[in-house]
Amino acid sequence: MNRLTGVGVSPGVGFGTGYVLVHEIPVPAADARHGGDAELERIRAVNALEQVAGDLEGRGVRAGGEGQQVLDAQAMMARDPGLAAGVAELVAEGRSASRAVYEAFGRYREMLAGAGGYLGARVADLDDVRDRTIAALEGLSLPGVPVQAAEPYVLVARDLAPADTALLSPGVVAAFVTEEGGPTSHTAIIARALGVPAVVACPGATAIPAGTPVLVDGTSGLVRLSPSGEEVDAVRRAAAARAAVLAASTGVGTTADGHAVPLLANIGGPGDVDAALEYGAEGVGLYRTEFLFLGRKEAPSAEEQEAAYLEVLKAFPGGQVVVRTLDAGADKPLAFLPPAGEEPNPALGERGSRLFRIHPELMAEQLTALARAASQVSARIQVMAPMVATAEEAARFATACREAGLPSAGVMVEIPSAALRASDLAAEVAFFSIGTNDLAQYAFAADRQLGALAALQDAWQPALLDLVAMAAAGAARYGRPCGVCGEAAGDPVLACVLVGLGVTSLSMAPPSLPAVRAALARHTQQQCLLAAQAARAAVSPDRARAAARSHLPGLVELAL
Amino acid sequence: MNRLTGVGVSPGVGFGTGYVLVHEIPVPAADARHGGDAELERIRAVNALEQVAGDLEGRGVRAGGEGQQVLDAQAMMARDPGLAAGVAELVAEGRSASRAVYEAFGRYREMLAGAGGYLGARVADLDDVRDRTIAALEGLSLPGVPVQAAEPYVLVARDLAPADTALLSPGVVAAFVTEEGGPTSHTAIIARALGVPAVVACPGATAIPAGTPVLVDGTSGLVRLSPSGEEVDAVRRAAAARAAVLAASTGVGTTADGHAVPLLANIGGPGDVDAALEYGAEGVGLYRTEFLFLGRKEAPSAEEQEAAYLEVLKAFPGGQVVVRTLDAGADKPLAFLPPAGEEPNPALGERGSRLFRIHPELMAEQLTALARAASQVSARIQVMAPMVATAEEAARFATACREAGLPSAGVMVEIPSAALRASDLAAEVAFFSIGTNDLAQYAFAADRQLGALAALQDAWQPALLDLVAMAAAGAARYGRPCGVCGEAAGDPVLACVLVGLGVTSLSMAPPSLPAVRAALARHTQQQCLLAAQAARAAVSPDRARAAARSHLPGLVELAL
Repeated sequence: MNRLTGVGVSPGVGFGTGYVLVHEIPVPAADARHGGDAELERIRAVNALEQVAGDLEGRGVRAGGEGQQVLDAQAMMARDPGLAAGVAELVAEGRSASRAVYEAFGRYREMLAGAGGYLGARVADLDDVRDRTIAALEGLSLPGVPVQAAEPYVLVARDLAPADTALLSPGVVAAFVTEEGGPTSHTAIIARALGVPAVVACPGATAIPAGTPVLVDGTSGLVRLSPSGEEVDAVRRAAAARAAVLAASTGVGTTADGHAVPLLANIGGPGDVDAALEYGAEGVGLYRTEFLFLGRKEAPSAEEQEAAYLEVLKAFPGGQVVVRTLDAGADKPLAFLPPAGEEPNPALGERGSRLFRIHPELMAEQLTALARAASQVSARIQVMAPMVATAEEAARFATACREAGLPSAGVMVEIPSAALRASDLAAEVAFFSIGTNDLAQYAFAADRQLGALAALQDAWQPALLDLVAMAAAGAARYGRPCGVCGEAAGDPVLACVLVGLGVTSLSMAPPSLPAVRAALARHTQQQCLLAAQAARAAVSPDRARAAARSHLPGLVELAL
Repeated sequence: MNRLTGVGVSPGVGFGTGYVLVHEIPVPAADARHGGDAELERIRAVNALEQVAGDLEGRGVRAGGEGQQVLDAQAMMARDPGLAAGVAELVAEGRSASRAVYEAFGRYREMLAGAGGYLGARVADLDDVRDRTIAALEGLSLPGVPVQAAEPYVLVARDLAPADTALLSPGVVAAFVTEEGGPTSHTAIIARALGVPAVVACPGATAIPAGTPVLVDGTSGLVRLSPSGEEVDAVRRAAAARAAVLAASTGVGTTADGHAVPLLANIGGPGDVDAALEYGAEGVGLYRTEFLFLGRKEAPSAEEQEAAYLEVLKAFPGGQVVVRTLDAGADKPLAFLPPAGEEPNPALGERGSRLFRIHPELMAEQLTALARAASQVSARIQVMAPMVATAEEAARFATACREAGLPSAGVMVEIPSAALRASDLAAEVAFFSIGTNDLAQYAFAADRQLGALAALQDAWQPALLDLVAMAAAGAARYGRPCGVCGEAAGDPVLACVLVGLGVTSLSMAPPSLPAVRAALARHTQQQCLLAAQAARAAVSPDRARAAARSHLPGLVELAL
């Protein structure tokens, strides 16, 4: 075994010693009993839970941002009074603290796993809290991720938990390789946010012997073990050349022949603004406002919302800021809006702006807060609704925006019907933003969360390119801009193809901006058009990618 | 209140006295305890469960067919040993038999509800068994549905359970009206199978006072209460005129100018062949083979499969029989193939022919059984795969069929990408069959099972018509036939539009055949084409329907 292949989800090349993270806490024996003093044993358990909660909180404070929210949520799990009561009950029956913790967490685990979707995905977070608590009780050391290192290492794991990654930085970690996960997994998101190369869905990764030198190509998904010195040098030279080109890539997005393509940032809140500015974003193409709402017991007040929106808008004076209204429900449930009933397929349920039909007051309040914030700044605010399927729904949203004093209302194109009837929708709204991830999920009936169906979520699938072309053509018919804010926009090759398909702006995770900017600057609009035509004429993602590349010679200079 | 509106799911007009079915079994009090003899109480509970099981089985035998399978499954619930043990345990703790039954069922209920999907939908069946058992213990009479009546009555309910409907016939029930359910609910399927008009998703229906005369239009979804004599007469005259036209509608499917459109039947097994022949089906357009596999502890043997296929093929000498390979997985789990893991959205998961990638032996065995059956008859067998998204998947299936000795391999077009890239797929396979229900579900990201999103599942949505047109055009490019086997094919107006969109055959529930045959016979291919163009030019389902009708004057004669 000298090479492994996975899915590249964060571009670039990383080289370092492999550090394989194994979390193996033994299950406490079913008949493990305490010495007889139940109260003493209960206090041991409570102290261990509190120690874990404090540790997670401490990591959260040091991490800040979204990482902190996730770690705080884990700390809350450790401090759950129902859990403590369950542990006390089991200890009173004679079970050891470790076994009681194991069983009490087991009950919660079943409930979460049964819920599926977003909550189901929290099972891994819960297991992490349980393992940390048992480790504390048993005096086991939970192998953590080194947060300092003389040389950056390659972090290899089955999958990564938020607590593992929150304190990492590019100076410490050269690359990530995980056996599980997909392009939208926690690992992928963290890697892109840090600007560290990453390969996920890489079978056999955790069998890499500790200390093996590992060379990771986060673009191609190739992982080379114990590469030769020349191999590392060649790959590093290419990466250095590429880095130099990227460092020189500044200014606004434009093709070689001067066709402007605004390059924007996807953000989750004010905390992401710095990175957007650092990488030269010309504005915000996707502001996901749901982070203000998730995990709250009550909806944020209009005032709180206004303050958050204002903070983002102020960072882009005179620039463009596209805000997506609350995209929650189903697999991202809101604590203050209990769902009307069980949904067998949350992704096909009452999510996104469909929730506003049931809770119009929520939409009215958000639009009012956005209008108030917009009135105080020079940034051009544009508001768009997620999960819009028909022209009628688009028209209804545009009317609501107009009534709230927001003149520029658009829609996400992330449902196939919206792309198919793009010109009907363009007649009703001012702009489109294509969400390629969800659009692929529905166009291929392939869950984003299922690694087994990853081939159908490939953004190079010709049918997905067809839908993008239809959306852009529908928008053009009414002179409306049509951006892309899905993962596809951050792939430099695909970015050129999207421009060739008629897309007018690209929004992405900030670290992807320089490579996309450089790729566009090396090609004319005509080259992009020919690349797009060649890709659509292909019958598979691989052939589409190859066909497009043959029309984009400047990629070679970028070592792409 | 003199009229209610719902969704018409089984065409025709029915008039009769309203019979409102209320299943209200009071919850046994939480502190209900037995007299002291736990063993006596346990025996009472066991006897009640056995009595209910026997009653359900008896109904099953009288009903036959699919109804029997459902009722047998309910009888098995009543005889579950785990359930009996749970009841015994609770009775031993002092609870009354009724309360013990209530609590023991509650545990199962939670598990099923937590599972969601197909299993989640079984909660209603479980509740029905519980209520019948408590009724038996408490000496309550569970209001059943009268299975004999001097005059056919209109059955009104919140929703209907299989046990309610299994013994009904068109001579007893004039129409169904339910508050819940959708076009693919149990009520809708049973109503169409019986050929009885039905309106579902009709708010306020159960508030209709018992004994009210009710006039139900299963085409428009209108429910009139206490209609005037003239109103009933007019509607009945129209219905009689229509019935006369339908009775005269025989022979093969063809437009007024002689363009042949084979009219075929959707069937679930040999038991449905008689109805198909009775209504003049020219063959089978969709044979759902999963009924052979569902609810089995082991896969049916190749011999058993061959015998079932042979029985269907023999009924159509020289005719066309399109067999869909096993469409299970996810929300229709197979007992002998435990799923690899929890799927957050089963409808977007490893279902349909995606299962064959994991279990190729299952496909090989089914194809072999089909080839053996085909070699013994004159019927032309065609085999198609469900849930195909790409040309590559289509090619793989065609190769497998060829290797098994089945020359005619096709695919279901029920995923948007398959319609978008229809000509890529048509290059690989011999025919298409469009499944409009799933195609709409994915194209609009709207779960078929969610009544709240019913407007997005309307087969008249212009985006859905676009996808049908794309599929037909792709097929035509390679001279391949392209049928429709979804619910849309059974709507006489839409059937004309589908022909205008380029669809070459229509397959439906047998009772829908006469009206579709009559509608086609009254219009030329050119009229169908103009109706299709007009529908696609509209921006909403209502306008599409109205625009199409304006080009189809013969519908008036049919009182449609």
